[in-house]
Amino acid sequence: MKIRYGLACLAVGCLTGLGGMLLSWILHAVQHIAYGYSLQHVISEESFLKGSMAASPLRRLEVLVFCGAVVGGGWGLLRHFGSPLVSITQAVAANKRVMPFWTTIIHVLLQIVTVGLGSPLGREVAPRELGSLIGERFAFWGGLSENQRRILVACGAGAGLASVYNVPLSGALFALEALLMTWASPVVIVALLTSALSARMAWILLGNSMVYHVPAWPVDTRLMLLALLAGPIFGIAAHYFRFWSQKITASRIKDNRRLALVAILCFAAIGLLSMWFPEILGNGKGPVSLAFNDNLSGMKAGELFCFKILAVFLALWAGAYGGLLTPGISFGALLAVVIGHLWNMWLPPVPIGAFAIIGGAAFLASSMKMPITAMALVIEFARTGHDFLIPIAFAVAGSIAISQFYDQKKQPKTASKSVISHLGG
Amino acid sequence: MKIRYGLACLAVGCLTGLGGMLLSWILHAVQHIAYGYSLQHVISEESFLKGSMAASPLRRLEVLVFCGAVVGGGWGLLRHFGSPLVSITQAVAANKRVMPFWTTIIHVLLQIVTVGLGSPLGREVAPRELGSLIGERFAFWGGLSENQRRILVACGAGAGLASVYNVPLSGALFALEALLMTWASPVVIVALLTSALSARMAWILLGNSMVYHVPAWPVDTRLMLLALLAGPIFGIAAHYFRFWSQKITASRIKDNRRLALVAILCFAAIGLLSMWFPEILGNGKGPVSLAFNDNLSGMKAGELFCFKILAVFLALWAGAYGGLLTPGISFGALLAVVIGHLWNMWLPPVPIGAFAIIGGAAFLASSMKMPITAMALVIEFARTGHDFLIPIAFAVAGSIAISQFYDQKKQPKTASKSVISHLGG
Repeated sequence: MKIRYGLACLAVGCLTGLGGMLLSWILHAVQHIAYGYSLQHVISEESFLKGSMAASPLRRLEVLVFCGAVVGGGWGLLRHFGSPLVSITQAVAANKRVMPFWTTIIHVLLQIVTVGLGSPLGREVAPRELGSLIGERFAFWGGLSENQRRILVACGAGAGLASVYNVPLSGALFALEALLMTWASPVVIVALLTSALSARMAWILLGNSMVYHVPAWPVDTRLMLLALLAGPIFGIAAHYFRFWSQKITASRIKDNRRLALVAILCFAAIGLLSMWFPEILGNGKGPVSLAFNDNLSGMKAGELFCFKILAVFLALWAGAYGGLLTPGISFGALLAVVIGHLWNMWLPPVPIGAFAIIGGAAFLASSMKMPITAMALVIEFARTGHDFLIPIAFAVAGSIAISQFYDQKKQPKTASKSVISHLGG
Repeated sequence: MKIRYGLACLAVGCLTGLGGMLLSWILHAVQHIAYGYSLQHVISEESFLKGSMAASPLRRLEVLVFCGAVVGGGWGLLRHFGSPLVSITQAVAANKRVMPFWTTIIHVLLQIVTVGLGSPLGREVAPRELGSLIGERFAFWGGLSENQRRILVACGAGAGLASVYNVPLSGALFALEALLMTWASPVVIVALLTSALSARMAWILLGNSMVYHVPAWPVDTRLMLLALLAGPIFGIAAHYFRFWSQKITASRIKDNRRLALVAILCFAAIGLLSMWFPEILGNGKGPVSLAFNDNLSGMKAGELFCFKILAVFLALWAGAYGGLLTPGISFGALLAVVIGHLWNMWLPPVPIGAFAIIGGAAFLASSMKMPITAMALVIEFARTGHDFLIPIAFAVAGSIAISQFYDQKKQPKTASKSVISHLGG
């Protein structure tokens, strides 16, 4: 039993890493073909932002209409012919729901293809779901216990995240904080091992890649003060974003016949927006990169913030699936650029790029409700120095505090009870 | 209530930071006076390792005998006249035990003075206890709930750790992982805020200090493989170290009259050892620094490993109090140097300094039973690059796995039960 569990962990780490690597490869291939850039390389120096901006505005519109057709047609057919989808959260919950194999695989591929075509959602749910599926299958094959199955499903999801973004620590923390809510050593072992293995495996094709290349921004007392003061603003924005994106997801079109038409129309609208704002396309990496490098004016960042949110809401309503992790960082970073420019007008100036990194963490912490993982993710993404930890901690604490306050206003009793039960008190 | 809780958090963060800063200052002053180096500066460029090695061997023996007298006399008198001590763990447990104010303060100062005089234990329990005491007092003054008191006591301890070592993230994780075992957002907010504030406060006097200056060691597949294979060795060593240090602590001298004599004799023995091995004195920072920079031969590292453990056991048996955190890292780093040199004799060579960093994390993870905090601490101490995360995760996972296995052998039922209850399954 112990040996089979150990072997299953190793297999989940290795296979999820290879799977995530493959999904990254497909994503890049789709991007290059759709927007016609760097066609001879799949892993190129040319970023999606550069490539999609170089394409003609009309081409962007056409690709997005096609993307809408894939969304409508793909998920419409999947819903009609496939088994009902089981989310990672449902699979981790101890109710023995099994993720359907082929339906999940097609669901994963559809996400990757549509994000590659320019859907404004994140690509990281696809490798997470693939990792969970792998974890679940190995738990069945090894005849593992129900508890071990739950751990493997969650750690598979973390490993998926670790592989596509090369973030071994954040992958493990995601499994522990966002999915299992435990610090127990036996679970920590599996989370660390699968996540680190998976991240290493993906190096084979992707190399030891770095998500954002960011200059070494200085951290001083002004920046810390601004982080402390502005934390709650990110919390409020993230709270409302979370609220509306859940509401819109819940009210997405149920009728399969109308789905294709609605999807094409919604994605055509995103395409129209992208004719003037190509930065809103894709998972949000482009605007984040611009914000972290201080390459955006306050005005431009404000426009991108509004239109990117609009695009995400349109995509969700049109029935597209995808992650809200990279989009979340991009909203935080863009909002931070706006706040930073306002601050710099009258007050002792802070480095805008540095504040964008802090804002990305603060928004993500509340929008995904995972403060520690959000901190670790942004630090691994931007490979910031140690000094950033203090202002990031301030901003994340302020952001989480205010979104917690809003949540408690809605359901005051259950929230405070769950805190006590977590403490075992 | 909410406002008073918020103000208490801010106060605990600020005051613990200032307190930790003051304790660091006292430690340095005692070190400089005792070993007679850099007398005009309290915060100097000259490390304790250099200073104590420059002192004559006889002076080291004399200082250690004096240290033994302080240990025996100090804790003997404190036990006779003071109130019974309440540990942080006891104060965090929901049984309303109150930390006695003056006894705890004197206990904290005794730890700092004896470590400054060369006691081979860590200095980080003192600021942790001070932080917990501050947290508890503010919880009483603010009339906070029992649950809020527990959170403030634990986060005060984390903030104390954060201030003396300038490790804001590890301080927060320590409170969450080692003391409260929770990921609940309301607790995470307090942990991040107090820890970051406290670390920032200590900058006032100590500057944005860095614990270890380490060259940028390369990370390659060989190092990852060695980390994966050697992880369990660190786990076994840490398990036995933990077992024996607990056993020795439990069997320390109870009789106050004999205490002073035993303490002087034990510390005289440590002093004799230090005439030939001055590196074993103090909290272990010296040997760690040598190991991380690859300035030790395998033979020398093996000797230091054995004698440093012997010195710690002698100090614990003699009735001295102190931390096992920096000592834990030093044991792991020294053992790693030994293993690394053995590996390099026959197999493709790995950078010894890099492997020492990995070994420090792997040993600490098991000896203190806090894998995530140990990873974060070593990364914050050595400010390693992102690439280190994968081999460190491998080594920590292997180390924790084997020490978990030993623990389960002893009490198979309670251990597995607690894991399930943590998962809420």
